[in-house]
Amino acid sequence: MSIFLQSYSTLKKEYLPETFAISSSAEIEVALEEASAAFIPFAKKTFIERAEFLEAIAEAIMNCGDTLLQIAQEETALPLARLTGERGRTCTQLNLYAKLLREGNWCDAVIDTAMPDRQPLPRADLRRILQPIGPVLVFGASNFPFAYSTAGGDTASALAAGCPVIVKAHESHLGTNAMVAEAVKKAAEKTHMPKGVFATLIGTGPVLGQQLAMDERIKAIGFTGSYKAGMALYTTATQKRKTPIPVYAEMSSINPVVLLPQTLAEKTSVIATALAGSISLGVGQFCTSPGLLFAIDDEAAKTFAQELVNGLKVVAPATMLNPTICHTFYKDKASLANSENIQVLFDGDNEEENYKAAPALMQTTAAHFMLSPALQKEVFGPCSLLVLCKDMNEMQAAIASIEGQLTGSIYGNESELKTNEKLVDSLQQTVGRIIFNNVPTGVEVCNAIVHGGPYPATTDARTTSVGPEAIRRFARPICYQDCPDALLPLYLRNHNEAGIVRLVNGEFTKADIVS
Amino acid sequence: MSIFLQSYSTLKKEYLPETFAISSSAEIEVALEEASAAFIPFAKKTFIERAEFLEAIAEAIMNCGDTLLQIAQEETALPLARLTGERGRTCTQLNLYAKLLREGNWCDAVIDTAMPDRQPLPRADLRRILQPIGPVLVFGASNFPFAYSTAGGDTASALAAGCPVIVKAHESHLGTNAMVAEAVKKAAEKTHMPKGVFATLIGTGPVLGQQLAMDERIKAIGFTGSYKAGMALYTTATQKRKTPIPVYAEMSSINPVVLLPQTLAEKTSVIATALAGSISLGVGQFCTSPGLLFAIDDEAAKTFAQELVNGLKVVAPATMLNPTICHTFYKDKASLANSENIQVLFDGDNEEENYKAAPALMQTTAAHFMLSPALQKEVFGPCSLLVLCKDMNEMQAAIASIEGQLTGSIYGNESELKTNEKLVDSLQQTVGRIIFNNVPTGVEVCNAIVHGGPYPATTDARTTSVGPEAIRRFARPICYQDCPDALLPLYLRNHNEAGIVRLVNGEFTKADIVS
Repeated sequence: MSIFLQSYSTLKKEYLPETFAISSSAEIEVALEEASAAFIPFAKKTFIERAEFLEAIAEAIMNCGDTLLQIAQEETALPLARLTGERGRTCTQLNLYAKLLREGNWCDAVIDTAMPDRQPLPRADLRRILQPIGPVLVFGASNFPFAYSTAGGDTASALAAGCPVIVKAHESHLGTNAMVAEAVKKAAEKTHMPKGVFATLIGTGPVLGQQLAMDERIKAIGFTGSYKAGMALYTTATQKRKTPIPVYAEMSSINPVVLLPQTLAEKTSVIATALAGSISLGVGQFCTSPGLLFAIDDEAAKTFAQELVNGLKVVAPATMLNPTICHTFYKDKASLANSENIQVLFDGDNEEENYKAAPALMQTTAAHFMLSPALQKEVFGPCSLLVLCKDMNEMQAAIASIEGQLTGSIYGNESELKTNEKLVDSLQQTVGRIIFNNVPTGVEVCNAIVHGGPYPATTDARTTSVGPEAIRRFARPICYQDCPDALLPLYLRNHNEAGIVRLVNGEFTKADIVS
Repeated sequence: MSIFLQSYSTLKKEYLPETFAISSSAEIEVALEEASAAFIPFAKKTFIERAEFLEAIAEAIMNCGDTLLQIAQEETALPLARLTGERGRTCTQLNLYAKLLREGNWCDAVIDTAMPDRQPLPRADLRRILQPIGPVLVFGASNFPFAYSTAGGDTASALAAGCPVIVKAHESHLGTNAMVAEAVKKAAEKTHMPKGVFATLIGTGPVLGQQLAMDERIKAIGFTGSYKAGMALYTTATQKRKTPIPVYAEMSSINPVVLLPQTLAEKTSVIATALAGSISLGVGQFCTSPGLLFAIDDEAAKTFAQELVNGLKVVAPATMLNPTICHTFYKDKASLANSENIQVLFDGDNEEENYKAAPALMQTTAAHFMLSPALQKEVFGPCSLLVLCKDMNEMQAAIASIEGQLTGSIYGNESELKTNEKLVDSLQQTVGRIIFNNVPTGVEVCNAIVHGGPYPATTDARTTSVGPEAIRRFARPICYQDCPDALLPLYLRNHNEAGIVRLVNGEFTKADIVS
């Protein structure tokens, strides 16, 4: 058995020289024990202290400089410009949670003061606040080596909530992981966080991942990756452990795009160009890549299909993230192409041996789509399926048959949208984010974002993995009844030292409690 | 096979005459199909319209008058005064959610307006709001025939969120269920709610319950009852269905009470009296009944035990809710009494044949408690276990070994509590509500309440089943990107017609959006 792992570079077509020792049982035990011991001290840090930690992580990541970008590029084959942008987004996320902590309102502080003279029974003093749930296990995504990996959204939001984090290093960017993990550790030391607040462990996914997920010291899991791996964790977390825990797994999504006929006819070229760009963006390696297009089978759709093919034809094959993703793309694409009633409108050059992929576009009928659940399987990469519907009723039925998705897009003018309200409602019920007259790729990091959605897009549609709301995933409410003021969490004490907004006896206020 | 069910009266020791037909397959299908069809229309009702519905339910329940109380008394053996109070609490809950809807802020409306000129990329208009998740299946509790049954907290919060509800009627209060269900239906008609917004179905728990839980049209489950039944539903919901769904199961809790030595010595009698009352309250049939007491093995503890026994001795045996609960109580109590190293300090008269129970108090050592997970099994009824610890270190270790609970109480003065901070932290991590110097029974319906807690007390510690926060269990966030104003949910439109508080570009405001 190998005792170390290496990242494979699809750019260089070879294993990179640096070796990463597989974590030993002793190292795994230390990480779990230290995370567990760090929990209460870390939970008791003030929001400001945790904000300083997050800001220090962002700073430490920037301090890694170009070396980090270069390592990431070798390991992921993503362009430097994209990686530079993603690094910026990662720091933006860290700073967003830091800002949330500095404001302090995220913790939902609620106070109902005692009513000793109430009849027939007095009311106790009751105070509620969100508290961290314990050590969190994070599995990063291959397609976002910064923003959804070691110090990405899951890690940032879990640390912000007050939970120690153990990251299972992604096997395809071990060097990036090591450097970012080092930055997090430096930031933890610099800001005097408890030992064990962050650790990264190395091992093969199904073995190490399952071992960690089974451990009772882990209290929640954040995961971004395949449906299969996500559901394996979900089964472990909900059924195999002594204590079930929440799993926030973002898995597969084919992001349907609905093209209403009038708008498609009026804006054929604009839409085709936008979709060609969205389908091929990042070699289709986005969780919001549009894998399913719906149109009425009319002349405009024919023109659209041709223009979309023309747009995809000019896209040069580009290197994918890792060999597994590349081989799986070719296999899944071939399987789709060879399915019954599937017409291949375009399929770019096969450059599997170079780990490169070009876009592909297939076509089927709505009638067939509705009979074939397999057509809803994600083909991760630049491949999309155009579903032609014979009329709006059939389109409505086809949309209603779609499984849960991260996003759903609809192109239509206001009168078309109003006429097809039922269809819009159906689409909305299926997704976490509904987009009007635009492509699904591009996830804004802002207050209103939802990056999540009904199963099988995720295992928990009640949450988002991007934006400030993500912090709630790693917290639970605790109520303190008649707790002496000095023993209350800082943010529930009579003196509102942090000046946060609290719901006091039904009114939002920053005022102190006069006892 | 029987085609009808009857409630058994433990007061009369006979089946009550009224028969309730087991729901046919056709009736079950109609309920599911109508709930499914009602979902979108109900979700689109304004908050005010839903508030009127909830208020009308409360009114219709009150209009049932004394007949409802009498039926409930026959079916549950609960005293009229208690039932009168519980009916009031049920209406309070309905009106609390109505108030929440009228205020409107619960929906977490967040708006980030478009920034078309932003560099390097423009920002879309993004708006997020909580939306109902779909038809909810509710299983009521036997011990709260009003407040946690047909129109109880789960139903009220699910309806408030905009979810149609199907209630699996509790077999031990079928008449109460029928009358309350009729009241809900009248209220739905009166306030023009869509057909199918509420239904109740009758059948034996494991059969009908599992059938409904398996149905893909059900999108969440609210449950209050035994660990076994709750976990059967959890397994179905997370592993057996095509689409996993959230289950909010409130199951078992033994509600530890920690007695710090100085305070116990100073207030021996006061604490013994309070606990005697709390243990025997409602024949111990409360989810917050104190089943576990921790004290240091000193003179004060001996006096306390004796005084507690004296307090329990004078409690007359009282009738339990139903035969199963009564027989299970006697069985579980005997099993505890016959366990190794358990000393029976007091066991009241056996009146099992009359379905009556008297309090019992047992004692063991912390060393033994920590070695015997079986001692953490809930004995539902008026029975408590005193655990004597040889010192504070052992008490700390014993507390740390306790499974998840709804509540944990601690008696101690401020200096004792500060000295034993680690113990307080341990207890807090184990519970949903931590109570200082009081008994756990009595759950206030208020903003700050948390009635929930870590597994196995519930299957989802991130929530509460009492209080306004309970509404969030049945909602999920949806984000609207560049949605035409007229198609947005009312509460996200530019004109803030409902005057709710929204987070607009990072600031809380009731202002309109000027586009």
